[in-house]
Amino acid sequence: MAVNFTPTKAEELLPIPGVALGIARAGIRKANRRDLLLIRLDAGAAVAGVFTQNRFCAAPVLLCREHLAASSKAGGIRALVVNTGIANAGTGEPGLRAARASCESVARLLGCSPWQVLPFSTGVIMEPLPVERLEAGLPACSADLREDNWAAAAEAIMTTDTVPKAASRKVSLGGTAVTVTGIAKGAGMIRPNMATMLGFVATDAAVAQPLLDRLVREAADASFNCVTVDGDTSTNDSFVLIASGRAGNAAVADAASADYAALKQAVTAVAAELAQAIVRDGEGATKFMTIDVRGGRDAAECKAVGYAIAHSPLVKTAFFASDPNLGRILAAIGNAGIADLDVARVKLWLDEVLVAENGGPAASYREAEGARVMQQAEIAVRIDLARGGAQATVWTCDFSYDYVRINADYRS
Amino acid sequence: MAVNFTPTKAEELLPIPGVALGIARAGIRKANRRDLLLIRLDAGAAVAGVFTQNRFCAAPVLLCREHLAASSKAGGIRALVVNTGIANAGTGEPGLRAARASCESVARLLGCSPWQVLPFSTGVIMEPLPVERLEAGLPACSADLREDNWAAAAEAIMTTDTVPKAASRKVSLGGTAVTVTGIAKGAGMIRPNMATMLGFVATDAAVAQPLLDRLVREAADASFNCVTVDGDTSTNDSFVLIASGRAGNAAVADAASADYAALKQAVTAVAAELAQAIVRDGEGATKFMTIDVRGGRDAAECKAVGYAIAHSPLVKTAFFASDPNLGRILAAIGNAGIADLDVARVKLWLDEVLVAENGGPAASYREAEGARVMQQAEIAVRIDLARGGAQATVWTCDFSYDYVRINADYRS
Repeated sequence: MAVNFTPTKAEELLPIPGVALGIARAGIRKANRRDLLLIRLDAGAAVAGVFTQNRFCAAPVLLCREHLAASSKAGGIRALVVNTGIANAGTGEPGLRAARASCESVARLLGCSPWQVLPFSTGVIMEPLPVERLEAGLPACSADLREDNWAAAAEAIMTTDTVPKAASRKVSLGGTAVTVTGIAKGAGMIRPNMATMLGFVATDAAVAQPLLDRLVREAADASFNCVTVDGDTSTNDSFVLIASGRAGNAAVADAASADYAALKQAVTAVAAELAQAIVRDGEGATKFMTIDVRGGRDAAECKAVGYAIAHSPLVKTAFFASDPNLGRILAAIGNAGIADLDVARVKLWLDEVLVAENGGPAASYREAEGARVMQQAEIAVRIDLARGGAQATVWTCDFSYDYVRINADYRS
Repeated sequence: MAVNFTPTKAEELLPIPGVALGIARAGIRKANRRDLLLIRLDAGAAVAGVFTQNRFCAAPVLLCREHLAASSKAGGIRALVVNTGIANAGTGEPGLRAARASCESVARLLGCSPWQVLPFSTGVIMEPLPVERLEAGLPACSADLREDNWAAAAEAIMTTDTVPKAASRKVSLGGTAVTVTGIAKGAGMIRPNMATMLGFVATDAAVAQPLLDRLVREAADASFNCVTVDGDTSTNDSFVLIASGRAGNAAVADAASADYAALKQAVTAVAAELAQAIVRDGEGATKFMTIDVRGGRDAAECKAVGYAIAHSPLVKTAFFASDPNLGRILAAIGNAGIADLDVARVKLWLDEVLVAENGGPAASYREAEGARVMQQAEIAVRIDLARGGAQATVWTCDFSYDYVRINADYRS
């Protein structure tokens, strides 16, 4: 069960004019589950994306990069096709051919060019994508295309997720109301580096392409690039931002404008809500931790400390056990690779409870206080490195029996 | 239960003349368990050590570094004192005072200077060391001092270890028979960086101090620095090499000599056996994996690939499940940080079975073959990066329910 998480109701997910979604049961890997999503964009939409840094990136990721580059020169992206069950990663040339075939089928169906289609896959690695099943499912997706179909789309992209993840915001740009709606999937193999497993956020705002390219990176850095479940960066991580331009606002084209700031805030809020939902639904998660690291020389070292804590199996199992075995957090800080860290200046809090200072337990610390905070489902771990003014946040979850069970059973 | 591991019998552990060991039940953290070890060295022994790179290193580690530096200038190390139960890490100034007090007590007992004593602690972090209990236990250790006491010593330093870890070798140096015997402890928080949790290896060979300093580093790099259980580098990692000089050989003083090569081989064999024993006894381990990475540009990138695989919770749970979900290994290789890795040239074998090539499954690969190897308790994961001539090995274990249970329960 996801930690402190209430899925957004279908009626709270606001449609984005110019963006229609259709789903189908294509039997990609298992029968009778929604596993195929088609997103059709009206002509004129701007699209930007960020993708995994994993060198064994999936075939659809390679094609997304190629098609986004092509579409920026001529015409634009007209469709996204997403399958679950099979990741089409570690599949070599045959995998690339399968991804190309998927795009060609979508292009025939919608009457566009194959390079105007972005493909996405998630699921088991190193198994072939059954293209013929995907193709056979496309007509049902097409018949289902609706602008108010985000809730079903959020369900269709789930794999080991236990809850669908979707969010909406409204914001005013120069007096024009615009909407931002997004969905994401992911629960394990989560340590995004540029993007998460799969995240799709759309707005009806008009945004100039260069600024959309910037916005997708900035939003990813403040959302999906702040989370980790198990430290494993997926082969398929993709985060795509769509601007259909149908809201009627003057196109956002200046990074210093109030409109850009307002839109960035809304997009980041949606992306952060989705990113946090992925952690709350982390495989086997029973706790949600916000790790807030301050006082670093730069954000990179703050993030390194945050991830050292968030990736430590010993820290994660202590949180699972609600055991204030907080020396494990100090050990993780000491392992973050800051060679000249003065541990005597480091301070550690659990929520408001000062746990450690001067290289050891704080004089005021009582284990009962630590134990009280550790019982909570939602915990803030706060660290002051006391060597600079930089800050970073990492969101993560604990490590339970169920993580092992889920990942030992995943293919069976 | 440790994987494929038979503890060395007490009678197979060869005494080292000039090195006596005594143990006691001091009740450091729990009553009625062997938790205190005193090692007394005859005058003239040379001692060298390598220690954790964790910035939150324990008070005894700080003192070990200080005392080794002092002893190299005047006189030599005469004793080691080791307690389990409390790590004396994350304990600030009071922890340092407690470690100094331990050394002073040993010095009084044995009639040497405090800086001739090396202290070691292992156990829970951030709790105070009860020095008075340690001091009260020392007379019993002293009364127990014997050169044939290695087996009891190996037991006395266990914490979550399920088996004692000890090994011996004999080697001839210029016609003189010399002996190497060592013990180690460790099962979790294992990703040594310079050394393991605690490892003590002694030889009666005479070795010049500069060469012993070199030998301890070289042996650590080929043994303790090749293993990982959970990627957490401990605050207390220490590996100490003692040369009592009682064998009567001409002191080994030339790194290019046959004697050095022979001694290095014996010391490394003992250290590697101990390091592998730590992995075989890894918390919750059911499998032992040797990850052999070849064809790298340098050893560092081979080791990075080995550790990326060995630290991936998804890889480790797949091994636990005996599930040939081998795409997870490709994903881990892709995450090892080699930016210009050509994945199409990478090859992956499980034992002798070629699993992946050309970026995807090998044409000859049959899942039944992968499944057969995954059932084994001992598995070789072999990777060829095909970009150079370097090689590295990493030893690790799988990740099971019991790892979570052990680490969720550790303090209770």
